[in-house]
Amino acid sequence: MKLFEETLNSVGDLYEEAMSEARNRQKSLFKPPGSLGKLETMSVQLAGITGKVRNNLSKKLIIIMGADNGVIEEGVSVKRIETTASITKNIVAGGTGISVLARHAGSDLMVIDIGINADLHCPGIINKKIRYGTGNIMKGPAMTGEETIRAIETGIEAVFEASQKGYQLIGTGEAGIGNTTTSSAIFSLYAGTAIEDITGIGAGLSDEGIKRKIEVIKKSIELNHPDPSDPVDVLSKVGGLDIAGLVGCYLGCAARRIPVVIDGFISGVAALMAIKLNKKTRNFMFPSHISSEKGGKKLMEFLSMEPVVSTDMRLGEGTGCTMSFFILEGACKIINEMFTCKEAVGQEQI
Amino acid sequence: MKLFEETLNSVGDLYEEAMSEARNRQKSLFKPPGSLGKLETMSVQLAGITGKVRNNLSKKLIIIMGADNGVIEEGVSVKRIETTASITKNIVAGGTGISVLARHAGSDLMVIDIGINADLHCPGIINKKIRYGTGNIMKGPAMTGEETIRAIETGIEAVFEASQKGYQLIGTGEAGIGNTTTSSAIFSLYAGTAIEDITGIGAGLSDEGIKRKIEVIKKSIELNHPDPSDPVDVLSKVGGLDIAGLVGCYLGCAARRIPVVIDGFISGVAALMAIKLNKKTRNFMFPSHISSEKGGKKLMEFLSMEPVVSTDMRLGEGTGCTMSFFILEGACKIINEMFTCKEAVGQEQI
Repeated sequence: MKLFEETLNSVGDLYEEAMSEARNRQKSLFKPPGSLGKLETMSVQLAGITGKVRNNLSKKLIIIMGADNGVIEEGVSVKRIETTASITKNIVAGGTGISVLARHAGSDLMVIDIGINADLHCPGIINKKIRYGTGNIMKGPAMTGEETIRAIETGIEAVFEASQKGYQLIGTGEAGIGNTTTSSAIFSLYAGTAIEDITGIGAGLSDEGIKRKIEVIKKSIELNHPDPSDPVDVLSKVGGLDIAGLVGCYLGCAARRIPVVIDGFISGVAALMAIKLNKKTRNFMFPSHISSEKGGKKLMEFLSMEPVVSTDMRLGEGTGCTMSFFILEGACKIINEMFTCKEAVGQEQI
Repeated sequence: MKLFEETLNSVGDLYEEAMSEARNRQKSLFKPPGSLGKLETMSVQLAGITGKVRNNLSKKLIIIMGADNGVIEEGVSVKRIETTASITKNIVAGGTGISVLARHAGSDLMVIDIGINADLHCPGIINKKIRYGTGNIMKGPAMTGEETIRAIETGIEAVFEASQKGYQLIGTGEAGIGNTTTSSAIFSLYAGTAIEDITGIGAGLSDEGIKRKIEVIKKSIELNHPDPSDPVDVLSKVGGLDIAGLVGCYLGCAARRIPVVIDGFISGVAALMAIKLNKKTRNFMFPSHISSEKGGKKLMEFLSMEPVVSTDMRLGEGTGCTMSFFILEGACKIINEMFTCKEAVGQEQI
């Protein structure tokens, strides 16, 4: 609890002076002002985060929270609960989507078992298990408030460790069968739209399956009465350990002033909850792609965030982050390496 | 003329069998089917292009066509004509947007002077000058039909040389003050919408400047009577040497079965003209980003292409290609390196 509250209270503002310097440098570069669009605004936000106009994001990490969700016994997923364990094992074995794309982007992975329903005994997966999966939210709360705080603190600690190791850019990923159900449940409390509009197929539900999933979400909210004004209450009643862990990652990145990239729908719901806890955390976040999971686009609109990639992906694991990593690094190189108009060759002729 | 016609007639179809194999392999991978969206469809298209399921796109090139446009004497750009020469010199000097982003993406550059209004004497810029800029389209055609064919053939030859050097992926870029005017003029003949809807600020025109630009486009079309059913006629009357050169790049890539990436609005208009010449060329193209130049989004919609990046860029030079390169290489690595469900560890437990 102490770490949670201290971290929450230690989030600062963006450095205005560095942002102003970055804006001026962008104007001085050899291109029409504004013509590099978000590569320019990204460089300004990065300057606000680190206090430096020139940043290097070459040491990159994606933190993946693996956890099971008791609600899957209600038939809200086409996958069996054992799949979460299998995904995390295959991530560290190097053969999943995120394994491949993280190598491609030059990013390391930190895979955390924050609540998988099995003893994994797998080197490379960090055991921070809080419990063997959450409870079934159709029958009661997902977990206690204390467990929720511990999950958030697990995410904070992961970022603090990454910070000590010198990571300059962090992405958020997850593996957790059933977590589109919990994500839609959380988002529905804020979205101002029907649950139907933000509930999708997850790993591949049929129309019939989606109807059941919507029913489960509605009943879980009726039963548990989550209080939207209290994010910890919401996370504990209809959330999950993976989402709570990622909330901690966002808090930790904001506190340590490390730029952090949102992946898709689940990771985005965690970002929403971090912002609800402290709206300043938003300044340290970058969206990546528009998830093709049904709530994905609506969530980005709700957060007034404009993702830079649209590849119709809905795999999770942090896969979308890898593409934003490439673009963010490009934004840094532009402001670091481009000629100013004065430096450009042959300017005496113009 | 012979090279142009031979190339146009040598464009083949996609290899259906390789595409079918790629689809099957995607289904066998350790992920919900379809969950990697366009990374999956890209890998299928690439298989159709090369005939191989597993592709390596590590040897990459962006071809940049530099040319001047006589129409700029009508005040359609905030930049002076000398700027085109300056941009190309600074590209090879390593300090422009594309210089930086191509290094970031691991891509080489081929910079071609296809019609710059100056003698450059600059090592690194390939002299293929057809004329010292085009004529002012407000006063007559941009160039002759013969010059247009020579420009297209210059683009074809550039690709054939790149193919001999082993390049596996090609992007298209340009530098040419005034070329958003010629691009909007060409696109207006097909777009089925008002010229006002597809004419933008280019390098930074005022509202007054845009009005003049629209007027210039209207009058140029009235004066020159380009025939929309004859792409070479259109290019010669209201186009430019840079656009014609890029048309040749698309034809060359299709003939040599090399995947080719479209950058922004100008590069996209060249893609449109290549498709008008031979609709099969479309199969070898990949869009990259949605240019924030006004016609950019409309053009992609018109071509029924879905760009994968949206960073509000409008710099040209091929900058958008660099991001698509990263995503296309990621698509290859996914199909090459991901575990199949059978290969995945611990599957005996599921």
